[in-house]
Amino acid sequence: MNHKTKLDYRMFCISRNFIGVIMSEENFSETALHNISVSDSTKTVDLSKVSDVIINLLEQELNENALDLFASFHPVDKAEILIEMPRLLQYSLLKTLEVESIREILSTLDPSVAASIYSLLPETINTTVLNELSADVATDILRALPEVDAQAALDKMDHAEDVLSLIVYPDDSAGGLMLPPYNVVKATRTAGVALDALRLASEATTDINIMFVIDDNFRPVGYLSIKKIALARASTPIPTLMKPIPITVSVSADQEECVRIIERYDLQCLGVTNPSGQLVGVIDSEDLLDVAEAEASEDMFKIAGMSTEKPQASISKSLRGRAPWLVINLATTFAAAGIIQLFESTIAKAAVLAVFLPVVAGQGGIGGTQTLTLTVRSIALGELPGNRGRKLLLHEATLGILNGIYLGLVVAIICSLWIGNPLIGLVLGVAMFGNMVIAGVVGASIPLILRKIRQDPAISSAVVVTTFTDIVGFLLFLGLASLIINNAST
Amino acid sequence: MNHKTKLDYRMFCISRNFIGVIMSEENFSETALHNISVSDSTKTVDLSKVSDVIINLLEQELNENALDLFASFHPVDKAEILIEMPRLLQYSLLKTLEVESIREILSTLDPSVAASIYSLLPETINTTVLNELSADVATDILRALPEVDAQAALDKMDHAEDVLSLIVYPDDSAGGLMLPPYNVVKATRTAGVALDALRLASEATTDINIMFVIDDNFRPVGYLSIKKIALARASTPIPTLMKPIPITVSVSADQEECVRIIERYDLQCLGVTNPSGQLVGVIDSEDLLDVAEAEASEDMFKIAGMSTEKPQASISKSLRGRAPWLVINLATTFAAAGIIQLFESTIAKAAVLAVFLPVVAGQGGIGGTQTLTLTVRSIALGELPGNRGRKLLLHEATLGILNGIYLGLVVAIICSLWIGNPLIGLVLGVAMFGNMVIAGVVGASIPLILRKIRQDPAISSAVVVTTFTDIVGFLLFLGLASLIINNAST
Repeated sequence: MNHKTKLDYRMFCISRNFIGVIMSEENFSETALHNISVSDSTKTVDLSKVSDVIINLLEQELNENALDLFASFHPVDKAEILIEMPRLLQYSLLKTLEVESIREILSTLDPSVAASIYSLLPETINTTVLNELSADVATDILRALPEVDAQAALDKMDHAEDVLSLIVYPDDSAGGLMLPPYNVVKATRTAGVALDALRLASEATTDINIMFVIDDNFRPVGYLSIKKIALARASTPIPTLMKPIPITVSVSADQEECVRIIERYDLQCLGVTNPSGQLVGVIDSEDLLDVAEAEASEDMFKIAGMSTEKPQASISKSLRGRAPWLVINLATTFAAAGIIQLFESTIAKAAVLAVFLPVVAGQGGIGGTQTLTLTVRSIALGELPGNRGRKLLLHEATLGILNGIYLGLVVAIICSLWIGNPLIGLVLGVAMFGNMVIAGVVGASIPLILRKIRQDPAISSAVVVTTFTDIVGFLLFLGLASLIINNAST
Repeated sequence: MNHKTKLDYRMFCISRNFIGVIMSEENFSETALHNISVSDSTKTVDLSKVSDVIINLLEQELNENALDLFASFHPVDKAEILIEMPRLLQYSLLKTLEVESIREILSTLDPSVAASIYSLLPETINTTVLNELSADVATDILRALPEVDAQAALDKMDHAEDVLSLIVYPDDSAGGLMLPPYNVVKATRTAGVALDALRLASEATTDINIMFVIDDNFRPVGYLSIKKIALARASTPIPTLMKPIPITVSVSADQEECVRIIERYDLQCLGVTNPSGQLVGVIDSEDLLDVAEAEASEDMFKIAGMSTEKPQASISKSLRGRAPWLVINLATTFAAAGIIQLFESTIAKAAVLAVFLPVVAGQGGIGGTQTLTLTVRSIALGELPGNRGRKLLLHEATLGILNGIYLGLVVAIICSLWIGNPLIGLVLGVAMFGNMVIAGVVGASIPLILRKIRQDPAISSAVVVTTFTDIVGFLLFLGLASLIINNAST
């Protein structure tokens, strides 16, 4: 048999939602094939192995086979396969791809990665690719390029004005997320005019299925679904078809605010206005699913005391990202150690006190983290408007008191039975009570105060709350125990 | 002036994305008006105050004014105002509302709340309302009603078959999220036929802007955007307009899986198939933003050791939701206490050892929580397919070693200088090192093991990881210190 036998592969979906690659081939390197296995636990094919196969094929100069295999994947998967490859082979592959395929791949990548792939493109096609990209993706890529390269690319672009209108806004603002308002129609027109406008705009727009209705000053006054336009008589006036717009955002609005609004009002897309109230862009709700996930991740990581991190981050990046809170935490644990040192002579007399230190510290930590997590998440989801923050604080304080009572009783009884000293048991119970109350009050009030002073509530982090509970718990437990023990010994 | 002067209010949006209520009125109860203030920090009007005003108006039998004020809000806000009212007044208000307004309100509410509002509706309109609701919302409400009531309501419905086709699936599965496939066209037809089909389906469908293309066996073969249909010539055959479907899910797929797929492939909507591969429903991407947020919240709460909780939960509900992990944590802190007790005689000889117990415990806790959070979140976002889990474990173990080395050195030096005993300093450094390594290994491996045995990785929770780090840290620190101190004393 010939070494270059036909490769037959395809991507398929089966009912239990699982993507795999079937390759039937005769003489093709067995090991490479063997490496493409479907991992059952995640139900997706391991694309890094597909990448290995393509690398293999390219190195054996089986370019056509490599290209065929590559072409069988969805753009999202193509992008993932491509970024797993060495830079030289990325270049070999890219120069054989069609513009449309490159456009699709770049549209799915993170801006910084897309920019690095873009800079690999041959000069003969890079401007064409940039022209074909939607304005928001092109803008993101140009923002991520070195300034000289971005300027050079902009000079050659066909619709540089679209990009220039977006590039001034920060990446994480409404302005950075929006597309230019391609689909608009004046309120004085008819459905027929709207359909014509849509036809003209058709190439530039991506998948936005809403048309904004504007007044003579380009201010949004309503919206229309494209379905309504398609089904209406051409002579129907726009105002009889349109619905009112519940809300718009300003170009400077934070991306998290945009998510909250789209979610709350269940919008397909969100109009973005400039300070004069004119429509300057549109945010598609689909683009906000990523934003919502990223914001949720960010808050989770902040509560855990680290910056946002991807599982494939380098060791040095992870080290740097986690060091700040580890070092801060070290300082706070030494502060707690300082509190204990105040009572060293008491512990020397009754070493059994040391036994219960982790009980005091551990319980306050978890109670505080529960309250903190609820408060931070509720603020993020916009569930604590107006005076509800104060209500939550009261709720958490009450809960702290109740948790403190039952947990205090339990530890007092266990400790008394354990060491046969009800007085120490009582002291431990009181410390536990104080600890849980502080946990509730501090866990709720720190994020609320941070919001009040317009800081990110999530930076409060479990580290800060635990410091309070540790110090108060140790002071109460060892302080009261010292009084008893020193009284007893005098 | 007359007591019933005209109320002039409206909802407005200003550029910095802020919703408020303007009420201009003359003789209307000053205090009620005063209560409607816009909270600047959250940029939304406090709807519970609007609710108070409406309650006031209804109690003064100014029903018309109450209704006018209520009508000025968006359905989402109407729903929030309504649920803040006492049940009797909810009933008074509901019986004056139009069917369309009630339909909109029910569509925005959580199923259980919607069901409780639905059961308040007068018999004269409740079936009409149910008929007008989209099939997925009606299904959710019926699922939340007592079975007798649900059956009675179903018997009277016009399109009971739509609901019956959905009600068999669990709420959190693809089947529970989907709408029946209203917008479909056979691959053998033309754009004109598709447009006609759309016109017929128009009332039943909500906002789905995609039409699925099916074969003769109702299996999905492609999709079309409604824009494409609207702009195409009526005679254009469907296959020249349609795009291939990258993926579909089975009716039994988990809702989190649906989120991952829609996000990964940037889909506007996701086809749902039965075991024979036939299209049985469609999930709209907008409906998944809520799901994504809810899943993220759930994971955050689980890591903090609590069940999902809303800030307005009752005290007794909060108490019950948080008690399990508080009690488990209590047991684990007593386990740690048991470890310390093993070394009580050593501590009696050198009480200074007790001072450093929180340093050992605290540092392992934060390191472990960092690793745990990264692992749980990466699994949830589908970023750890195949053997990447093992890579992450190796990464976290390496990081634990490196963190252990620098933090161990730092604490060894501080402790040596503080108490003037380099041997104890060294022991503390070694314990810190062991602690950080365990934090990395345990923090990564517990969620990965849970995934392997098909349990929810998030249930691992910080409590479990902290137990490991506490116990190992105390054993190392006190164990080594005992060896040194007992050797020195013999």
